[in-house]
Amino acid sequence: MNEAPSVLASNSAYEALKPDARGWFESLRDRVCAAFEAIEENLPRDAPLADGPAGRFERTAWTRPTEAGAEFPLGAEAGGGGGIMSVLRGRVFEKVGVNVSTVWGTFSPDFRAQIPGAAEDPRFWASGISLVAHMQSPLVPAVHFNTRMLVTTKGWFGGGGDLTPMRLDTPEAIEDAADFHARLRLACDRHGPGYYATFKAWCDRYFYLPHRQEPRGAGGIFFDHHTTGDAAADFAFTREVGEAFLDIYPRIVRRRMTQAWTQAERDHQLVRRGRYVEFNLIHDRGTLFGLKTGGNVEAILMSLPPEVRWP
Amino acid sequence: MNEAPSVLASNSAYEALKPDARGWFESLRDRVCAAFEAIEENLPRDAPLADGPAGRFERTAWTRPTEAGAEFPLGAEAGGGGGIMSVLRGRVFEKVGVNVSTVWGTFSPDFRAQIPGAAEDPRFWASGISLVAHMQSPLVPAVHFNTRMLVTTKGWFGGGGDLTPMRLDTPEAIEDAADFHARLRLACDRHGPGYYATFKAWCDRYFYLPHRQEPRGAGGIFFDHHTTGDAAADFAFTREVGEAFLDIYPRIVRRRMTQAWTQAERDHQLVRRGRYVEFNLIHDRGTLFGLKTGGNVEAILMSLPPEVRWP
Repeated sequence: MNEAPSVLASNSAYEALKPDARGWFESLRDRVCAAFEAIEENLPRDAPLADGPAGRFERTAWTRPTEAGAEFPLGAEAGGGGGIMSVLRGRVFEKVGVNVSTVWGTFSPDFRAQIPGAAEDPRFWASGISLVAHMQSPLVPAVHFNTRMLVTTKGWFGGGGDLTPMRLDTPEAIEDAADFHARLRLACDRHGPGYYATFKAWCDRYFYLPHRQEPRGAGGIFFDHHTTGDAAADFAFTREVGEAFLDIYPRIVRRRMTQAWTQAERDHQLVRRGRYVEFNLIHDRGTLFGLKTGGNVEAILMSLPPEVRWP
Repeated sequence: MNEAPSVLASNSAYEALKPDARGWFESLRDRVCAAFEAIEENLPRDAPLADGPAGRFERTAWTRPTEAGAEFPLGAEAGGGGGIMSVLRGRVFEKVGVNVSTVWGTFSPDFRAQIPGAAEDPRFWASGISLVAHMQSPLVPAVHFNTRMLVTTKGWFGGGGDLTPMRLDTPEAIEDAADFHARLRLACDRHGPGYYATFKAWCDRYFYLPHRQEPRGAGGIFFDHHTTGDAAADFAFTREVGEAFLDIYPRIVRRRMTQAWTQAERDHQLVRRGRYVEFNLIHDRGTLFGLKTGGNVEAILMSLPPEVRWP
């Protein structure tokens, strides 16, 4: 992979954090993948689909075009970097994609006004991890998690995680959502007294389908442009959110994955996944940003469910 | 259904056409539905899925909210009207939706600059027919067709049709696309020597997925803001396009529907349908316009395929 230029000396705290941030996103990826593979391997023999083979992650590297004249459709004019897609198709995880990427470039004029610090200098650097899991069982919630660091003439962290049970009103879904939120709250509370309330409300606003007038799921936390003036502390918070995700989601999967489901529950799951698609393709800023900045299409659309119905 | 006010006396040619346009869209709907039901009924006994029952259209009327304070999320502030969704789920047509609607209202400020004639007076009236068919057989092309009339302080027609074979390079797909284009060309040539070339090119530009760098299908024609100064002639052209669709598409379906397909062809069809979803939710102006102007969500998203895979 080609080397990112160190462009922004005015921004030394974030410049200095780049290698650690990238390294941490990648090591979290390794630990998440290991945790999910362990779940695949440990599925009890009497659980649904246990006669299938345990899924393993397959990795595919991609490189962002750097040559002159390469197409960056709307958002970015030039740049480089790339990423690695890790995808597992298994007996518990129907499809889970974990992407890490580190990219840099120059925002095109119509993007500059929208990105903090880009009006002054259009160059950017971005690194992050992004994960979406769609589960075989309609009784196991789907999940999304990501954290990222952005550097322009400014620097900031962003990310979050949210849980999508197929039904919101069953005792199990209520318990899963409560535990997911409680664990994220714990992570937030260690770093700022208002963080959880602020970032939970942000998540509720963000993961909302206005055309359906319904939330995408049971929520979680969402934060962006997060910069307190202490880059190291903000990075520590971002790591804490990752640790919280890695702690709670596998526990939720393990306690639900052995339960049998009905065809009606599966059919309902496939319809609910349609809402997930609608959100990601109509509303999700991350998806649209990625598609417009010459991101890797397969990596970005890895978030789409393996099987969906609009009956 | 409540009555549309006659608002735009400055626009008398289009004002006068409103009842006929609406009536024609609705009668075309009746004839299309009858043609598709006849296909369902006439499926030969030895054709795939012929042991299932012939599909019949089911109609659902919907009314656009008119009360003060009703939510028109982005595009429209008030209005009325409604439509009728006709949906058939059958043994040839896996899911086909034919919507007719006639709606009116007032564009919200952010929409006024984008719509011809709306800057002067934000009131609008729109009537049309829209159809998307997703077929059981991967050897039968999917199709989209619509025609509409819009009235602001200006008036115009729009519409078109495009064919989506699952593979573009088989002899059958090439023949289907050629016949579809030839029939539309015939309709165009009766009304303007440059119509076909212009509207075919417009279709190719419009039904294109930039993030995939691929066309949605085999194309067809697309026209919008079509007004030559002779509203009656433009309406006649619009009707001719409808007649062409009604003539050619059933013929294409009938000659392909009896052929057996493989599981690999079906799997490929489900993946190709994902492209259709990506186009409609990320790019299609009609879909996004409808969702933002308080259109009926079920009617708008009726275009989405019944079963889709992103493997």
